[in-house]
Amino acid sequence: LHHPLDPVFDPRAVALVGISSSARGRGAEFLHALLDQRFQERRPLYLVNPRASEIQGLRCYPTLADTPGPVDHVISLIPRDGARGLVEQCIAKGVRSLHFFTAGFSESGEDGMAEAERELAALARAGGVRVLGPNCMGLYVPAARLAFSVGLPREPGDVMGISQSGAHAGDIVQGIGDRGARFSKVVSFGNGSDIAAAELFDYAAADAQTALVVAYLEGTGDGRGLFAALRRCAAVKPTLVLKGGFTAAGARAASSHTGSLAGSAEVFDALCRQAGALRVETMEELHDAAIAVSTSARRVRGGRTVLVGGGGGFSVLSADALARRGLDLPELAAATREQLRPWVPVAGNSIRNPIDAGFMGANRREAIAAVTAIAAAAPGYDLTLVATGAGGRRAAAAGRPGDPDEDEEREADPAERAREQVARLAALQERQGRPIVVVRRDHEGPDGGPHPLDALAYAAGIATFASVARAARAIELLLGWRRSRAGLPELF
Amino acid sequence: LHHPLDPVFDPRAVALVGISSSARGRGAEFLHALLDQRFQERRPLYLVNPRASEIQGLRCYPTLADTPGPVDHVISLIPRDGARGLVEQCIAKGVRSLHFFTAGFSESGEDGMAEAERELAALARAGGVRVLGPNCMGLYVPAARLAFSVGLPREPGDVMGISQSGAHAGDIVQGIGDRGARFSKVVSFGNGSDIAAAELFDYAAADAQTALVVAYLEGTGDGRGLFAALRRCAAVKPTLVLKGGFTAAGARAASSHTGSLAGSAEVFDALCRQAGALRVETMEELHDAAIAVSTSARRVRGGRTVLVGGGGGFSVLSADALARRGLDLPELAAATREQLRPWVPVAGNSIRNPIDAGFMGANRREAIAAVTAIAAAAPGYDLTLVATGAGGRRAAAAGRPGDPDEDEEREADPAERAREQVARLAALQERQGRPIVVVRRDHEGPDGGPHPLDALAYAAGIATFASVARAARAIELLLGWRRSRAGLPELF
Repeated sequence: LHHPLDPVFDPRAVALVGISSSARGRGAEFLHALLDQRFQERRPLYLVNPRASEIQGLRCYPTLADTPGPVDHVISLIPRDGARGLVEQCIAKGVRSLHFFTAGFSESGEDGMAEAERELAALARAGGVRVLGPNCMGLYVPAARLAFSVGLPREPGDVMGISQSGAHAGDIVQGIGDRGARFSKVVSFGNGSDIAAAELFDYAAADAQTALVVAYLEGTGDGRGLFAALRRCAAVKPTLVLKGGFTAAGARAASSHTGSLAGSAEVFDALCRQAGALRVETMEELHDAAIAVSTSARRVRGGRTVLVGGGGGFSVLSADALARRGLDLPELAAATREQLRPWVPVAGNSIRNPIDAGFMGANRREAIAAVTAIAAAAPGYDLTLVATGAGGRRAAAAGRPGDPDEDEEREADPAERAREQVARLAALQERQGRPIVVVRRDHEGPDGGPHPLDALAYAAGIATFASVARAARAIELLLGWRRSRAGLPELF
Repeated sequence: LHHPLDPVFDPRAVALVGISSSARGRGAEFLHALLDQRFQERRPLYLVNPRASEIQGLRCYPTLADTPGPVDHVISLIPRDGARGLVEQCIAKGVRSLHFFTAGFSESGEDGMAEAERELAALARAGGVRVLGPNCMGLYVPAARLAFSVGLPREPGDVMGISQSGAHAGDIVQGIGDRGARFSKVVSFGNGSDIAAAELFDYAAADAQTALVVAYLEGTGDGRGLFAALRRCAAVKPTLVLKGGFTAAGARAASSHTGSLAGSAEVFDALCRQAGALRVETMEELHDAAIAVSTSARRVRGGRTVLVGGGGGFSVLSADALARRGLDLPELAAATREQLRPWVPVAGNSIRNPIDAGFMGANRREAIAAVTAIAAAAPGYDLTLVATGAGGRRAAAAGRPGDPDEDEEREADPAERAREQVARLAALQERQGRPIVVVRRDHEGPDGGPHPLDALAYAAGIATFASVARAARAIELLLGWRRSRAGLPELF
């Protein structure tokens, strides 16, 4: 074992304590999440409920002590009144970590509950049991087949998620998971009575399976310790932080949610900058920044952009959206315009930058490929931004204006189209050395699910964003972060 | 006839000139759009192509002159070289309006083409023919069964769209149409050689079928005339304006797109404010503001918000998002908190504001209804913001954390659920008099299409937004607009 938290992330057996006998409720969700990851195919999974002999076909034990083998990790769904007793049982059983989904402690604001929470954590620690929570969703660790909800990818990856909020842990997994990212560990730690952000940042810094750290925080608890750990982590790995609860109402909500005391946005921002962390302001930015630092977009060194694709109106608003984020669209050199001329019809298209590639006609695909290649090779730019798709929800199917003559594409298999497109862009990026970033204008995949282009592009090291505005903001964040890291190690 | 443009919006017969004999291409799209609206069931639709006798089962005529009856409106798909000849034929035929999809004029930047465009328009006007375009998508007028793409609603409504860009005309129709709005007229006018924004604003002001005007502009052409018309229109009807092309690259793109000369953002903004128009900065804002002014959200008079729904993490970031837009979440009065207490479990929920209603248990629906009713009745607020859904893409189906125990709702028909929900909220709004605004956290409907909640809520006069950030921005825009209209007639 290399880190005190290692055993938490690799339990040899798990017990769900306080799972209700109905097929509903959060206990059933935790159970289904573990079954969905096939935890029980490799390691024992015990259910504990004194009033049931079997739940969902799995045997139930009356108490934790009755489980037949050792238990490393306990997930608690019992009411808070039984929490202390459960800690004692865990100590007696030799449990290594105890995840309290159980809530009602410091976040309740009730007299004595903050103290009760501290005592609970101290008792557990003294007995050799680490505590997650209370009031949290716990662990998603695909390598150990742990999960807090069903439908999460089974294959592991290199992103570590650290979240004070369970819902936001889920947002992070879904938001960047849908776009192709996979996870080493995701920890929802709630009130953080024992295991909390600082220790998790230190773990992430040391963890060989983690290359990128994505965090949602509400309070800063021991601010000095937290920022020291954040600094150590951000020094060696890209570390993205979203902090909630800056406003009076937000702080009030944070206090009710995870018992956190929030601080000022300015102080937090300055500390993040000093630490070399990338601070974002919204969940959407957290997702987009995570995609950007995991792909070639992280190599962008400036804002000189060449934009190809989309129609005339799209070009106009895109240029404005890029400018709002400090990105520029310098006019193409005459030599490049000459190269483009044979491919871009005179009527209704521009070859200056943005390149309005609302092509028509039979050689549409060939023309798009040729124009994209010329754009990617145009000298003097930091970034090639490629817009794909017709825009909007199932736009191609609806036959809306702006992207004429897509009949052929409409008939093709979208996944196959996406594969061809990504292979072509990856080859261009490889050849030219300049990052390519994709704006995927079709908002969703053919079945209403994630768009196949996203994960394919991610695997090829190419970032995709749902709009020019979001791509521009992600690049702005990256460039600002790079400036703030002067003097720190180059991460890429 | 009340307005010179009335005949343009109600042609007794239409001819598609230059439609290609293949089933593909823009001509086929225009044809399918008209067939989709069932134009030909009520009025003659002629196809003109000298090299085909029949296209898609419809008879083709060699020239416009050969069509057997009068033709009011011509859609031109011919190359620009034939444009002048077509104008002469239209004059001879007694055509009242000529829509040039045909492009390649001022927007091409080529020598002489701006002049050629002016001459074309002058020739047509002198001969009694009004010109739309060149380089545009033309008309969507459901009452006259005209459309520029397939799949657009057949039922008319009260929103008039005015767009220099065809793609953005489509964005407007899809973006707010998916959310329940319907249209009186939508005009894509491209280069605006004859019919252009000023005249369309005046038309909109006078049009009995139009209650709301939504415009996308690139250039301002005759700026003085445009703003005089905008002022007349905005004085009597809510008039929303998105202007593209403010940056150097955006202006370059606007010039290539519709031959427009763009102006400065500051001047435009000041002129919009003086005119009493609501200026937005992005297409998303245009959609959201249109929904806001069409629903009870337009009655919001201040930023004091009570937010109900969502979990703890959602509450925290929502509070921050509202504050960023100048909205406040004043803490609930003790009396209101007392009313809430029986409904909100102690553990992990807040009753202060935001009201964290991540309920669990069997009486979940009843509890949500009761808490929403208490929130809607809480004294001292300008706005009740209700968050629904589990968040994210098909979140309920994925069983993600944050909205526990939704099993029952997952099984119910989403449209039926939405109907119940809207009926409940509409009754609450009616009873309390205070606007209710919905944040619909499920991003899409069950089939990947529009969410059924949006159109149902719209019909009940309730605005829906896809995030708290977007709702907050729409309210901020409305409040700012209201302030700027001091001295102008109250619209609602």
